[in-house]
Amino acid sequence: MNAPMTSIERLHLELPELDWITDPSRIARLSQDFAWFSPVLDRQLKDKRADAVVRPRTEGEIRALVGACARLGVPITIRGSGTGNYGQTTPLAGGVVLDMTGYNALLWVRTGVARAQAGIRLGELEKHTRPSGQELRCIPSTYRSATLGGLFGGGFGGVGSINYGPLGAPGNVLGLRAMTIEPEPQIVELRGAEALRMHHLWGTNGLVLELEVALAPAHPWLESLVVFDAFAPALAFADALANAPGIVKREVAFFASPVPDHLAQLAEHLPKGCHAVLSLVAESSEDPMRALADAHGGRMTYRKTAEEVKKSNRTLMEFTWNHTTLHALKVDKSLTYLQSSFVPGRHVAQITEMEQRFAGEVLMHVEFLRGLDGLLTCSALQLVRFTTEERLAEIIRLHREHGVRINNPHVFVVEDGKAGGALPPDIVEMKKRFDPRGLLNPGKLRDWPVKP
Amino acid sequence: MNAPMTSIERLHLELPELDWITDPSRIARLSQDFAWFSPVLDRQLKDKRADAVVRPRTEGEIRALVGACARLGVPITIRGSGTGNYGQTTPLAGGVVLDMTGYNALLWVRTGVARAQAGIRLGELEKHTRPSGQELRCIPSTYRSATLGGLFGGGFGGVGSINYGPLGAPGNVLGLRAMTIEPEPQIVELRGAEALRMHHLWGTNGLVLELEVALAPAHPWLESLVVFDAFAPALAFADALANAPGIVKREVAFFASPVPDHLAQLAEHLPKGCHAVLSLVAESSEDPMRALADAHGGRMTYRKTAEEVKKSNRTLMEFTWNHTTLHALKVDKSLTYLQSSFVPGRHVAQITEMEQRFAGEVLMHVEFLRGLDGLLTCSALQLVRFTTEERLAEIIRLHREHGVRINNPHVFVVEDGKAGGALPPDIVEMKKRFDPRGLLNPGKLRDWPVKP
Repeated sequence: MNAPMTSIERLHLELPELDWITDPSRIARLSQDFAWFSPVLDRQLKDKRADAVVRPRTEGEIRALVGACARLGVPITIRGSGTGNYGQTTPLAGGVVLDMTGYNALLWVRTGVARAQAGIRLGELEKHTRPSGQELRCIPSTYRSATLGGLFGGGFGGVGSINYGPLGAPGNVLGLRAMTIEPEPQIVELRGAEALRMHHLWGTNGLVLELEVALAPAHPWLESLVVFDAFAPALAFADALANAPGIVKREVAFFASPVPDHLAQLAEHLPKGCHAVLSLVAESSEDPMRALADAHGGRMTYRKTAEEVKKSNRTLMEFTWNHTTLHALKVDKSLTYLQSSFVPGRHVAQITEMEQRFAGEVLMHVEFLRGLDGLLTCSALQLVRFTTEERLAEIIRLHREHGVRINNPHVFVVEDGKAGGALPPDIVEMKKRFDPRGLLNPGKLRDWPVKP
Repeated sequence: MNAPMTSIERLHLELPELDWITDPSRIARLSQDFAWFSPVLDRQLKDKRADAVVRPRTEGEIRALVGACARLGVPITIRGSGTGNYGQTTPLAGGVVLDMTGYNALLWVRTGVARAQAGIRLGELEKHTRPSGQELRCIPSTYRSATLGGLFGGGFGGVGSINYGPLGAPGNVLGLRAMTIEPEPQIVELRGAEALRMHHLWGTNGLVLELEVALAPAHPWLESLVVFDAFAPALAFADALANAPGIVKREVAFFASPVPDHLAQLAEHLPKGCHAVLSLVAESSEDPMRALADAHGGRMTYRKTAEEVKKSNRTLMEFTWNHTTLHALKVDKSLTYLQSSFVPGRHVAQITEMEQRFAGEVLMHVEFLRGLDGLLTCSALQLVRFTTEERLAEIIRLHREHGVRINNPHVFVVEDGKAGGALPPDIVEMKKRFDPRGLLNPGKLRDWPVKP
């Protein structure tokens, strides 16, 4: 008599036509993301893996899989391209990783809005919007591989957030189509605020099938690096550029020395020891941007027109946000990072204070953006010379004591991340509605099932 | 023996081929603008007029006229369409009014930038930019008739300034071609900051021939009115809408009761006694805008898509900024107005305080915009129930005592207006360079010639 079948074996048997990935090394890889940026998460998550990965191609396949998992009680962890940093795609309790990258059709592009299946890569989506002079409003530096669903489920914003704020600002995501995790899965269209209740919940309170997002007009972007001898004028230039209402931009980042020394692929444009400002401004704003750089004593060392960027297939966007972290970690394995947000209007003073307080240990990398309230401020993805987990926790505590908000990137439980604390009732309601059996990556929500 | 010829007769004789306007009633009309909004300016300026008006069609004609005026010592007052409010086009010392509306060719439209002769009407210029999906960044409500040169010389910004700040923010005006007022006029191209030294000087420190301005991507704008029963939620909605980074907009105005009662042409959409918010948002932002209106208890009473606006040839833009004032003054001749700016971040509190302080006498009309520093704030063009010039001065003083900046619209001397006080050295330098004989509307600059 054979051993009883596992749930996974039953799934394979029941749904043989699905694109199953069973090779253990591929399963291991598809169970991970960029959580290795954090030595803490790396220790906690590196051995977690799915029992199987499946890559559905149609809504029917997704529905069949979800229904079967719900009947069999198999956990489901939804995955885009795995470019997240908090183990969003890492199953804490095994089960199936549902790789959405095969479910990637563009549905339509209209003036100001596009709709696509969740597994579409952001770079691919922009190929469809560009012919009508449109682009995505906020994209991560990983836009080439990252998926639309992954950005919505596990991301925040990025390039373009200097104009449109975070992805969660009302108006950026207009609606979505989602599936419940039940034996007979239901499919629902959610609009506006209701749709946002599934945003940045790391795929724990619903399975997003399609997303409808607002678009931005695409300008021809001039990509440049301006370098400075000193911290203060470089930061002042970046802040002035970010604020200037007549200078149209998509991205402004500030790398304090020695961050630029870690960007090996740009070394010829970044003199050793420099402080650098990376920006994308509309070509029509080049003159006022250069005048501002001159006024702050900056020197432009890199300048590519939109046409040159397109031809070279190399963009400075891939040196911003968490790509800066990635490039630095490639050069120096002892580094890790932080994610901070500063108080609008006090951001320059706070950054300067933190720079002085932690010089040499915390390396300042600042990204300018608008907050949910529309105020211009900064986020920082500081590089940290890692020593111990205790010291890392102390650095976080000291930042918080100085009024700097830390969105701790060294935690993998939703409530410990950006949300900070207990889940709001509307999020819990969504969880109950869309995942009544608690099968979406169990363990990722600490407060689920809700404790009595 | 005949009487000796006047300088004007000499000009006619010397330049017979120019398009001279000599009819006294037309001269009188072309010597005036909307200074009658102010009972103070009306009293001071209504009898001022030119000796002749000339409407050149080519740079050669302008050059010939300017050279002859310089040789003969005839004052020149530069005029666009006369939509200004401070007597910008009213000659204080007679001479020639140089009507630029015949010098109105489009030179080119490129991605992000357009260049045209100064006399082009803004509405006409937008007809040339629209085919490439572009529009002007900041336009006054008078855009149908107002000229590009007039906006630059006597204007501030307007619709669109909620995104791009005032016209004077670096990046909005990229360059210009100007002529010196000399017997042999010189023609010079000025770029960037140098060009801005002729901005808002009311045509007193140079004759602008051509302007090069940055453009904005044109969205299909949804025009709407949302009405409220109370002041506070209406203002809160307007402020939230203006700030929301994910809601793309071109215009947000707030009319406190009883301002809407004065907009007779919109009466069917503005219930008696209501407070109203007028906005232009991208059609793709309609849903989040409506959700915000609902959350504040607002009710949409007017809604036109971009297509409907185009077909009807009626736009709500012509009820904003100083058009609000115009519509109100048509209904109630006893009204005049103020121009105020509020402190970013304190603007809602300041507006609320002023509303309470002056209820019934100062009627609140608020326009949202970004300042030069990029911060979102408000400007107000309050309607004032005029009693005496003394009381008007007192109202201004009381606003200033409460930290509200008043750009006094009841003065006609440049130094008393927005610039507030002595002219900066770079402006004086420009005056010396471009108008060494002081022929540009003498009297408009108090400090010219510079007193020893």
